[in-house]
Amino acid sequence: ITEQDKAKWTAYARANASIGINGSVLNNVNASSKILSKSYLEKVRIIAGCLRNYGIKTYLSVNFSSPVLIGKLKKADPLDPQVQQWWKDKVKEIYSMIPDFGGFVVKANSEGQPGPQDYGRTHADGANMMADALAPFGGIVMWRAFVYNPSPEDRTKQAYKEFLPLDGSFRKNVILQVKNGPLDFQPREPFSPLFGGMVKTPVMAEFQITQEYLGGSKQLVFLSPLWQECLNSDTYQFGKGSTVAACTDGSFAHSDFTAIAGVSNIGMDLNWTGHTFAQANWYAFGRLAWNNKSESKVIAEEWIKQTFLDSRKKTDSKFVRTVQDMMMDSREAAVDYMMPLGLHHIFAEGHHYGPAPWFFNDKIRADWTSVYYHKADDQGIGFDRSRGGSAAVDQYHEPLSSKFNNPSSCPEIYLLWFHHLPWTYRMKSGNDLWTELCLRYDRGVNKVRSFQKDWDKVAVTVDKERFLEVQSKLRTQSRDAQIWKDACLLYFQQLSKREIPLQIERPIHELSSLKELTKSKDYQ
Amino acid sequence: ITEQDKAKWTAYARANASIGINGSVLNNVNASSKILSKSYLEKVRIIAGCLRNYGIKTYLSVNFSSPVLIGKLKKADPLDPQVQQWWKDKVKEIYSMIPDFGGFVVKANSEGQPGPQDYGRTHADGANMMADALAPFGGIVMWRAFVYNPSPEDRTKQAYKEFLPLDGSFRKNVILQVKNGPLDFQPREPFSPLFGGMVKTPVMAEFQITQEYLGGSKQLVFLSPLWQECLNSDTYQFGKGSTVAACTDGSFAHSDFTAIAGVSNIGMDLNWTGHTFAQANWYAFGRLAWNNKSESKVIAEEWIKQTFLDSRKKTDSKFVRTVQDMMMDSREAAVDYMMPLGLHHIFAEGHHYGPAPWFFNDKIRADWTSVYYHKADDQGIGFDRSRGGSAAVDQYHEPLSSKFNNPSSCPEIYLLWFHHLPWTYRMKSGNDLWTELCLRYDRGVNKVRSFQKDWDKVAVTVDKERFLEVQSKLRTQSRDAQIWKDACLLYFQQLSKREIPLQIERPIHELSSLKELTKSKDYQ
Repeated sequence: ITEQDKAKWTAYARANASIGINGSVLNNVNASSKILSKSYLEKVRIIAGCLRNYGIKTYLSVNFSSPVLIGKLKKADPLDPQVQQWWKDKVKEIYSMIPDFGGFVVKANSEGQPGPQDYGRTHADGANMMADALAPFGGIVMWRAFVYNPSPEDRTKQAYKEFLPLDGSFRKNVILQVKNGPLDFQPREPFSPLFGGMVKTPVMAEFQITQEYLGGSKQLVFLSPLWQECLNSDTYQFGKGSTVAACTDGSFAHSDFTAIAGVSNIGMDLNWTGHTFAQANWYAFGRLAWNNKSESKVIAEEWIKQTFLDSRKKTDSKFVRTVQDMMMDSREAAVDYMMPLGLHHIFAEGHHYGPAPWFFNDKIRADWTSVYYHKADDQGIGFDRSRGGSAAVDQYHEPLSSKFNNPSSCPEIYLLWFHHLPWTYRMKSGNDLWTELCLRYDRGVNKVRSFQKDWDKVAVTVDKERFLEVQSKLRTQSRDAQIWKDACLLYFQQLSKREIPLQIERPIHELSSLKELTKSKDYQ
Repeated sequence: ITEQDKAKWTAYARANASIGINGSVLNNVNASSKILSKSYLEKVRIIAGCLRNYGIKTYLSVNFSSPVLIGKLKKADPLDPQVQQWWKDKVKEIYSMIPDFGGFVVKANSEGQPGPQDYGRTHADGANMMADALAPFGGIVMWRAFVYNPSPEDRTKQAYKEFLPLDGSFRKNVILQVKNGPLDFQPREPFSPLFGGMVKTPVMAEFQITQEYLGGSKQLVFLSPLWQECLNSDTYQFGKGSTVAACTDGSFAHSDFTAIAGVSNIGMDLNWTGHTFAQANWYAFGRLAWNNKSESKVIAEEWIKQTFLDSRKKTDSKFVRTVQDMMMDSREAAVDYMMPLGLHHIFAEGHHYGPAPWFFNDKIRADWTSVYYHKADDQGIGFDRSRGGSAAVDQYHEPLSSKFNNPSSCPEIYLLWFHHLPWTYRMKSGNDLWTELCLRYDRGVNKVRSFQKDWDKVAVTVDKERFLEVQSKLRTQSRDAQIWKDACLLYFQQLSKREIPLQIERPIHELSSLKELTKSKDYQ
């Protein structure tokens, strides 16, 4: 550990503190047990020291099998007294080094991570064991609800089914950490029904700041509207107005604490986030964490002024408006050129950057392929989660459940999330579904092209280095938006057997070459 | 030689005869001496038999060094009696096998081919030697004027300077074969000043049917308008109305014969030409050879009806008009997205498909690089061939010479061919040169996109196989047109240091990636 390291951690802490972030989980949820070893904890102690100066508590992701992996125990059964004691000792050790340590994040029995179910125990058994160890020191457990198994059950229903029965059986210092949607940080999902589902258990939202499914650090996608869409969604838990925000900020349930988590996009880049505009997502997360009623537009404006304008130019309203509009439109554009109308998870095999609606591989679980999610065939497209299908709609409270259940009342932004509909289905626009799909993809591509122009228009106001960086990334985004459009339309067209409407631009790629392209490791 | 071979040659002869073609040169101008060996001549004899049935004479390209390479002589000096005798014997041998043999095409002292200058003799010496051997049998020599040397002289001036002094010194059965432009089959060139330059020597036009510099068999580019542009160009040799057509069809000079040559685009594809629409170029060449006053529009219409419409549909005027418009606009579109406003030869190193305006390599001759031709710098762009520059304009007759010499009277389609002008130069449109250049590139890209739509509109009228083939090739053309636009604008922008006008679409590629792409052997 050098002075340079400490300077970096301090700068990181300061940046977080400046936007109201008051906790940092140092490691990935797919945690190595090593993080709890003496030598690593010594490093954690030093980092915690840097963060503390800015009012930021340190947390760690822990591996549920740590007692076996570094503790020489034979098992990690949460009901085993030896295991419980191991965690108590470990927690005590941590607090002896970091007296204001925040607690643990746990990804258990999820995507291959170990967990209490390995010993026939429940998530509550696992979480409570850790909670008991942390309680004497004021620490908390953020237990992740992102679980799904290779089962015939609709993947998006599984977390709810797993956790709802456990409501009420968690310790007071456990909070359930729930991703915004029931799947996995897609360009658009309806909110997870665990928000508004759990009554006696505090629930916190997990947002993804890093754009795993939204163009990574190559694309300009301002995520604040996505998070706001989730926070403002009405769960109807206690009648109208029971928004996700209200269900997680303590407005209803009286828990000792509330929280919100963001999967960070901070890396080793000089600008922290790779894409200059990705900083805006970090910023927006902090602002929304502080005030979940903040408006994305306002957040964008604040960030633009702080990022691009020196005090002399703070009144450059044309610049602010232009960039603000780009940001505000950017998430909807990404939805359009990637997965409009409720489509989801049609990404390439092996990475989540490019499209592969054709992706199917019978050697892996179905719910890791694209065809599982769009279910397109020569009749139509979409995942039937209505009462006639997987009935995922019933995990929502009424009247939402019925609203989602009926295609005519289901918001079109979620249409193919909840319904498998014929290509000829009549949309509110009067277009049939196929045509509407084509128009959305095309709209997305054109929107990115307009961002390119917008950015070039403001060239004079931005320093050259950042201007060129963003200009270059917008070129990539424009090119890749077209790849999304062409890949999806040409693939779906094979099934719909309908013409691409003449009012939109023709594809410029061949399906076969796109299949090669997006398979490539270089394309991500 | 199989029956299948003969069937193919017969089909080839029949196709040519159907459009009025009455001669065929069997081999490439970069000829191997082997073609004159006994065993090859035996094959030529059989092919000639197939062609003869359709009224087509057989010609051969010959290597000037044949007497050395296959004749055991020490040299090929045209004034050497032994050499002369060798050719006389060889010609006699040919005619003993092929009594109606047409004659020779010769590429001599050009791009590394041997020729009379290797022995200090002139092109006339070389041509005349062969002419003397052929004369007793009624054979002719088509002597190519495509010569240029690694000299400081403007490459486009060299052929004229080489051949004009020889006017009058050629035998009666020699005809000078001159490419349409003074450079080399570019998307657009002014006509070669050898048309209208030679007075006592018959001159024939050499057109390129295969699209070496016009997208190969990947792109739809109807060449008839290009050839017509050349044929209709007024040389002013004998005053107004001395068109290239008139200068080559016997209207003025009284030679025993006239000719026109086309570098063929026939290959082993089932559709002969790779791209279905490339057939139209073969067809148009035949029609123009037969009647150099034919109109491209009419030729296109004939071809469309014969190619796509069975008798029942011959009245489908909407189809005909749509496809005819595509064809008629296609060459201008190619000029726009490749080399508008008189730009020329800015192709990639190693192939003539993609762009490389940046191409420079001091290890090869300058006139094989791109920068030699566009001469772009931070002041402006274009090759100064005015009287203040290379004075190539003076190879044309007045008033053309002065018209070309003055930027304000020089047709804008040839502007940068004849002039190096500042980026700020005011065009007739009112735009500055840089802006106009950008608009042209963009117009070209958009035109190809419109071809895609046009083609999709006529889907019902075309059989599926050809519809899909052309649709796919138009996608490639659209993609590659954008690559041209982005490569040229981004490269020239580095020099012009001006903004790409906001009314056009932004580039979607980076210059660095395009440099890699077009360098690739796969990209051609």
